[in-house]
Amino acid sequence: MIHTDLCIIGAGPVGLFAVFEAGLLKMRCHLIDALPQVGGQLSEIYPQKPIYDIPGYPEVNAQDLVDNLMEQAKPFSPTFTLGERVDHLDKQEDGSFIVSTSDKTKVHAKVIIIAGGLGCFEPRKPVVENLGLFEGKGITYMVKNPETFRDKKVILAGGGDSALDWTIFLSKVAKRVTLVHRNETFRGAPDSAAKVFDLANQGKIDLILSANLKEVSGNGVLDTVTFLDKSKAEIKIETDYLIPLFGLSPKLGPIADWGLSIDKNAIEVDTRDYSTGVDRIYAIGDINTYPGKLKLILCGFHEAAIMMHSAFKYVYPDQKLSFKYTTVNGVNSF
Amino acid sequence: MIHTDLCIIGAGPVGLFAVFEAGLLKMRCHLIDALPQVGGQLSEIYPQKPIYDIPGYPEVNAQDLVDNLMEQAKPFSPTFTLGERVDHLDKQEDGSFIVSTSDKTKVHAKVIIIAGGLGCFEPRKPVVENLGLFEGKGITYMVKNPETFRDKKVILAGGGDSALDWTIFLSKVAKRVTLVHRNETFRGAPDSAAKVFDLANQGKIDLILSANLKEVSGNGVLDTVTFLDKSKAEIKIETDYLIPLFGLSPKLGPIADWGLSIDKNAIEVDTRDYSTGVDRIYAIGDINTYPGKLKLILCGFHEAAIMMHSAFKYVYPDQKLSFKYTTVNGVNSF
Ligand SMILES: Cc1cc2nc3c(=O)[nH]c(=O)nc-3n(C[C@H](O)[C@H](O)[C@H](O)COP(=O)(O)OP(=O)(O)OC[C@H]3O[C@@H](n4cnc5c(N)ncnc54)[C@H](O)[C@@H]3O)c2cc1C
Ligand SMILES: Cc1cc2nc3c(=O)[nH]c(=O)nc-3n(C[C@H](O)[C@H](O)[C@H](O)COP(=O)(O)OP(=O)(O)OC[C@H]3O[C@@H](n4cnc5c(N)ncnc54)[C@H](O)[C@@H]3O)c2cc1C
Repeated sequence: MIHTDLCIIGAGPVGLFAVFEAGLLKMRCHLIDALPQVGGQLSEIYPQKPIYDIPGYPEVNAQDLVDNLMEQAKPFSPTFTLGERVDHLDKQEDGSFIVSTSDKTKVHAKVIIIAGGLGCFEPRKPVVENLGLFEGKGITYMVKNPETFRDKKVILAGGGDSALDWTIFLSKVAKRVTLVHRNETFRGAPDSAAKVFDLANQGKIDLILSANLKEVSGNGVLDTVTFLDKSKAEIKIETDYLIPLFGLSPKLGPIADWGLSIDKNAIEVDTRDYSTGVDRIYAIGDINTYPGKLKLILCGFHEAAIMMHSAFKYVYPDQKLSFKYTTVNGVNSF
Repeated sequence: MIHTDLCIIGAGPVGLFAVFEAGLLKMRCHLIDALPQVGGQLSEIYPQKPIYDIPGYPEVNAQDLVDNLMEQAKPFSPTFTLGERVDHLDKQEDGSFIVSTSDKTKVHAKVIIIAGGLGCFEPRKPVVENLGLFEGKGITYMVKNPETFRDKKVILAGGGDSALDWTIFLSKVAKRVTLVHRNETFRGAPDSAAKVFDLANQGKIDLILSANLKEVSGNGVLDTVTFLDKSKAEIKIETDYLIPLFGLSPKLGPIADWGLSIDKNAIEVDTRDYSTGVDRIYAIGDINTYPGKLKLILCGFHEAAIMMHSAFKYVYPDQKLSFKYTTVNGVNSF
């Protein structure tokens, strides 16, 4: 069991800045995110795109903003559980919570901060019979740890950046990599696509274009994947793993079941402190809603700052919060 | 008369960021500030100090933040009236306003945004009889335009950065500069102090230490200033100008008389859109108050963004606001 003051669900830009604001008030944070990396939508959807409306940055690359927020949080040494979805919140008698994840990690916290954005990113799954039978038994939708695939036979499916990047990366790790794509050209970055064609020409990977997934089979665990090519001919490939990378789409997910007041996939909060109806649970960033709400990064930053001044009383019930400017007080790490 | 969509009173960090948010919605801004430069408290009180709680900036120098905000607002070509205090707001029949300043500048605007911080910075004045008689007739508390002093005799009084910096600057412009200070040492930056001692040693300025202002006199306009030295002996100096630079302190000032609901020197607003009780007048940044308010720069940024989505209807009554991410839509200057 991990013990912390504040458990932050979601390590997007708003969750990350919340760590800094908590730290100024001497509260420790543990963050959990279903994705294998921090940064939320910015790192998952548009890492290399510029953002123009972060105050004081005429232009900033999304991934650079995430890196800067990590740097800013660093003095307060946040801890992370990545690649696990928070499934349950259990209220304890003393008011605190035990949070449990899809991988059975447990976190004990005095306060819960939901910074879950648009929800968990769920993989878009191909429509193939028996897919569910082999999930976790050869079929996976995310590369959490590339070492899993060392010296194994791997098929990747997809035509975007993830499919290209992991094909390039795993070509050095796996025994054999096959990339299958339904079109002749790729949606991902042109230089990654060029690299993939190079690897195929050098015989370092197998590239199958204009082909569609037809069937998965095996005896308990996946062993064969069947594709149909342009001429509808069957291609059967023996494999240890199939990784369909058809993109992720966010779904509110388990958050909907925690007894909070939900309106249009967002949690209703009180703008005085961004508290939800439930004691000791706050919601900030894209996941919350209130009259006038804008789903902007800069609004989530404000919500994080205000919220911490309210959460303080649960972590330090006997202390009076004294508010000092960072310019005057500095940032005292712990 | 200047015509604009939005008149922003106060060019501190929040007023400056409001220009950017207005620009995204194609609304033009004119800013008015009583100080001769933009940046509000940051430029006036702590330009060289670091701020640690601007999201995405682990550390930023206050003046650099102001410069970046000016850069970010630039595509939307804001216009400025600096060194003039807004004294009156007059509501027109069609709902718009005419704003007038201490120097009789008039601005016609569809919407008023008060981003006045802690109020106007008023000069701390020396306690000397008849001072008021010569204000604007030889006595001034601010250097708005250094050219005013070209080839004139000028006395500066004070020991902080402003007194030192303007002494150095005006020594190249004025006929003769005298700096009078009540102590033997200066509060301002050591290198500026060293420069001032140098100029005095080279005979380029007159430096009078441990002396206090006793009397100002003249026939309609200032012509003589009398000081008392350590031994209480009188020093009489003929001059065209006396510039006491004893610092500035903020006062709510005329804003208190505009019929707004004021609580503890701040304007009460509705957090749905940061509107004041009066139609078409908004208040953002340090000048406003609401349950949970924190006087932080990052909170003012959020308030500016939300507010603009409400003000839009007054500038474009027939259009529906369509909200797009800057990453998707870019920043289209005008
Ligand atoms: C293409 C695009 C362009 C954009 N451009 C801009 C722009 O220019 N300016 C701007 O201000 N905004 C922009 N946005 C919006 C911006 O990205 C969001 O406002 C921002 O990401 C919200 O941050 P957040 O931290 O609240 O949530 P998110 O970034 O969505 O992060 C939430 C995190 O919570 C995790 N999570 C959710 N539920 C769970 C759970 N049960 N267990 C574990 N983890 C969970 C998710 O995996 C995710 O990583 C843009 C968005 C997109 C898609
Ligand atoms: C020493 C110090 C350290 C600080 N450190 C931090 C920090 O670390 N983090 C943080 O977030 N905040 C900090 N602050 C607070 C921060 O400076 C303010 O929150 C910020 O300046 C508010 O911005 P603003 O634009 O609302 O107002 P201001 O910066 O106060 O600007 C308001 C402007 O309005 C003008 N004005 C007012 N009335 C009129 C009128 N009638 N006519 C014309 N002009 C008018 C004033 O001249 C002024 O320039 C600090 C403040 C100080 C003094």
